[in-house]
Amino acid sequence: MSPTPARITAVDTYDIRFPTSRELDGSDAMNPDPDYSAAYLVLRTDGDDPEGHGFTFTIGRGNDVQVAAIHALRHHVVGRPVDEVCADPGSLFRDLIGDSQLRWLGPEKGVMHMAIGAVVNAVWDLAAKRAGKPLWRLLAEADPQWLVGQIDFRYITDALTPAQALHLLRRGRQGAAGRTARLLERGYPGYTTSAGWLGYDDEKLTRLAAQAVADGFTQIKLKVGADLDDDVRRCRVARAVVGPGIRIAVDANQRWDTAEAIRWTKALAEFDPYWIEEPTSPDDVLAHAAIREAVAPVKVATGEHVHNRVVFKQMLQAGALDVLQIDAARVGGVNENLAILLLAAKYGVPVCPHAGGVGLCELVQHLSMFDYVALTGTTEDRVIEYVDHLHDHFLDPVVIRDGHYTAPTAPGFSAAMRPESIERYTFPGGTFWAADLAQQNRPDRHDQQKGHAA
Amino acid sequence: MSPTPARITAVDTYDIRFPTSRELDGSDAMNPDPDYSAAYLVLRTDGDDPEGHGFTFTIGRGNDVQVAAIHALRHHVVGRPVDEVCADPGSLFRDLIGDSQLRWLGPEKGVMHMAIGAVVNAVWDLAAKRAGKPLWRLLAEADPQWLVGQIDFRYITDALTPAQALHLLRRGRQGAAGRTARLLERGYPGYTTSAGWLGYDDEKLTRLAAQAVADGFTQIKLKVGADLDDDVRRCRVARAVVGPGIRIAVDANQRWDTAEAIRWTKALAEFDPYWIEEPTSPDDVLAHAAIREAVAPVKVATGEHVHNRVVFKQMLQAGALDVLQIDAARVGGVNENLAILLLAAKYGVPVCPHAGGVGLCELVQHLSMFDYVALTGTTEDRVIEYVDHLHDHFLDPVVIRDGHYTAPTAPGFSAAMRPESIERYTFPGGTFWAADLAQQNRPDRHDQQKGHAA
Repeated sequence: MSPTPARITAVDTYDIRFPTSRELDGSDAMNPDPDYSAAYLVLRTDGDDPEGHGFTFTIGRGNDVQVAAIHALRHHVVGRPVDEVCADPGSLFRDLIGDSQLRWLGPEKGVMHMAIGAVVNAVWDLAAKRAGKPLWRLLAEADPQWLVGQIDFRYITDALTPAQALHLLRRGRQGAAGRTARLLERGYPGYTTSAGWLGYDDEKLTRLAAQAVADGFTQIKLKVGADLDDDVRRCRVARAVVGPGIRIAVDANQRWDTAEAIRWTKALAEFDPYWIEEPTSPDDVLAHAAIREAVAPVKVATGEHVHNRVVFKQMLQAGALDVLQIDAARVGGVNENLAILLLAAKYGVPVCPHAGGVGLCELVQHLSMFDYVALTGTTEDRVIEYVDHLHDHFLDPVVIRDGHYTAPTAPGFSAAMRPESIERYTFPGGTFWAADLAQQNRPDRHDQQKGHAA
Repeated sequence: MSPTPARITAVDTYDIRFPTSRELDGSDAMNPDPDYSAAYLVLRTDGDDPEGHGFTFTIGRGNDVQVAAIHALRHHVVGRPVDEVCADPGSLFRDLIGDSQLRWLGPEKGVMHMAIGAVVNAVWDLAAKRAGKPLWRLLAEADPQWLVGQIDFRYITDALTPAQALHLLRRGRQGAAGRTARLLERGYPGYTTSAGWLGYDDEKLTRLAAQAVADGFTQIKLKVGADLDDDVRRCRVARAVVGPGIRIAVDANQRWDTAEAIRWTKALAEFDPYWIEEPTSPDDVLAHAAIREAVAPVKVATGEHVHNRVVFKQMLQAGALDVLQIDAARVGGVNENLAILLLAAKYGVPVCPHAGGVGLCELVQHLSMFDYVALTGTTEDRVIEYVDHLHDHFLDPVVIRDGHYTAPTAPGFSAAMRPESIERYTFPGGTFWAADLAQQNRPDRHDQQKGHAA
């Protein structure tokens, strides 16, 4: 041991991009050709500590801007004592969202806020590894008062006070040991979107939907919103394959205005969709409330692009949501997601996280598992999204068994990517991209360059 | 003339920062030490065209991230024919907000959206210069149908349809010639914030408030929100100096939650504040509505951090605002501000723009002047914020006469900074910063470095 406390010495950043657009994995009505990417960071210390890993998910171009934003936060992190940061990640979180100059670039939204989330999540990965626990367990076993101290209540006290949060967390602790045992045994329910990408043809949809049911999933999701006739056909195909007992969610990825969202959702109602996800702008609280009122009993879900606790709070206050979809890497990391989970618990709205992308399943499972074990105490009407790609790039990938997420047991936030994947897919210098770009730069391939010019 | 049409050949970017924190100019309850900055760009062509200038205003750290975001847009701009872009800036605007990969980083908010605004505004600067008109005049004389085509109605049709927008613009055109003449003669009313920065002592506040009245302003603004006793004292001082006939607006810069905003505003009511600005989070439509109901007759104003037309729309739908404060460089540029001006006109809410910073007065005056000449036809209860610093860095700076903004007559958007200012204040290599950073890097100055480490 050195005589001075160990400190964080580096925030190393990586621009990692996977060429997913080549197979139309992830294609939807707003995002026809995503290249799933991660603006990735590693916290290093001068002690014997493990590394802390964190990232923001993007879909290609602009991942470099996201990396620059993480880089712009490093002066808040480098030099901080590791013990102190891990004992109170909320202190760093508050410093990050409170940096008045950087705050101007949001506040608490978009590129800068996602960068904060990536750094904060890396700290929690480090803290959980040092505690020797998977993050869900660290949170579920933490002192409720300490957890309340991790939350920034600014702008949400009209919906949730610290005292109310403490009450919810103390109540949630009752019976936690039994739920931990059940979670370790059965896992947490998932649903799959792998069958329903918009770029897949009916044959592929049929095959993958049947496979989803065979794999034990009780809910699947289809992307909709580009063409109503196509959507009707695809919903009919999917319903015929899975039968009446399996839930089918549909997801418009923000494609519509209010009137069109209502009309389109009603046109799909005969196929009994369970929820309509992202029917319109994620900023539009009032539109979600109007759509929800009009399309019931179809439920309204959103959240993957809801940028902070203030918007989620209003969605709940306005009765705009039946299902709240947190994302592990969109808001300000674990600390802000604790606030959002507590708000959802207060309003009695189930949380069904957004996942997929790069590593989002790995991260967000921890938050739902905490929610089950030590906050709401139930998995009823709660499912974590699952998409079956890119997991092999992670050191502690999610394990799905009979349609359930198996509870992670390795210490940390399951955030670390394999070193060889980082090496291969770093843009533009990694081995994959260097070869690919050389190929694209051949004169006969000129038209295909534009997509990667940024 | 070359045989092929001229094209845009470059989007040159500059990270420009002014050391305003040294004098506490611009200090408020959330932003104690801003270094007013611009993420600046110049469009260049291969023809005989003038340059197009645009920028985003930031307050220091993170300006580099903003520059990176502008850089990430260049593939949408470079290579486009100049004639085509200037004939239809809306087409470029839609391509920029529709880039699905970059859209993921918002959507339509924060760093990426401000970068889009900077590029779009630069195109309008170029278009107005080529037309030989100041931007306000180009807009005021444009065909209403063409203006409607410049607007992206996605997510706002529940509040404003293209047909309604066209009706408003056609109605606004009646009597425009007379208003143009009056505008050129008298200018557009302004108000000043220069007296009221939180870092100024009472003596400076007294002196500057008296000066504001002597200069012909009929409204001043004080920053509040850090300490209630101080605010009471400062409001008393200001009211005593200006008398009952001058409006005093107060501005909390997002400092409060709902209950505190109501309590604090009521505590200042005896000094007859005209509006309370940014009482809470700019994302919080419902909180603004609740505050407005509670503090009337004090008006509620916000907008400088409202990130797009969707949030402004909801503020209007919810009756959350008495005064709508557009910012020229926060949303997606002129095109999105046209939508916001039309929404405000539809709901009958006066627009009083946010300005100050770097070049925001120069830009936003054009939008208010268009609003007066060819949309609402009135300046009643409408004032443009004015702050008297950094104008000397612009080639076509605002001119204030008897408390009014003089209508610009030079072609363009008044966006161009003096080349020598760009040279001197480019960070970190410009002559000012190179000398300053060398000074700061002396071992005895180590503590002061952190603020500029990003």
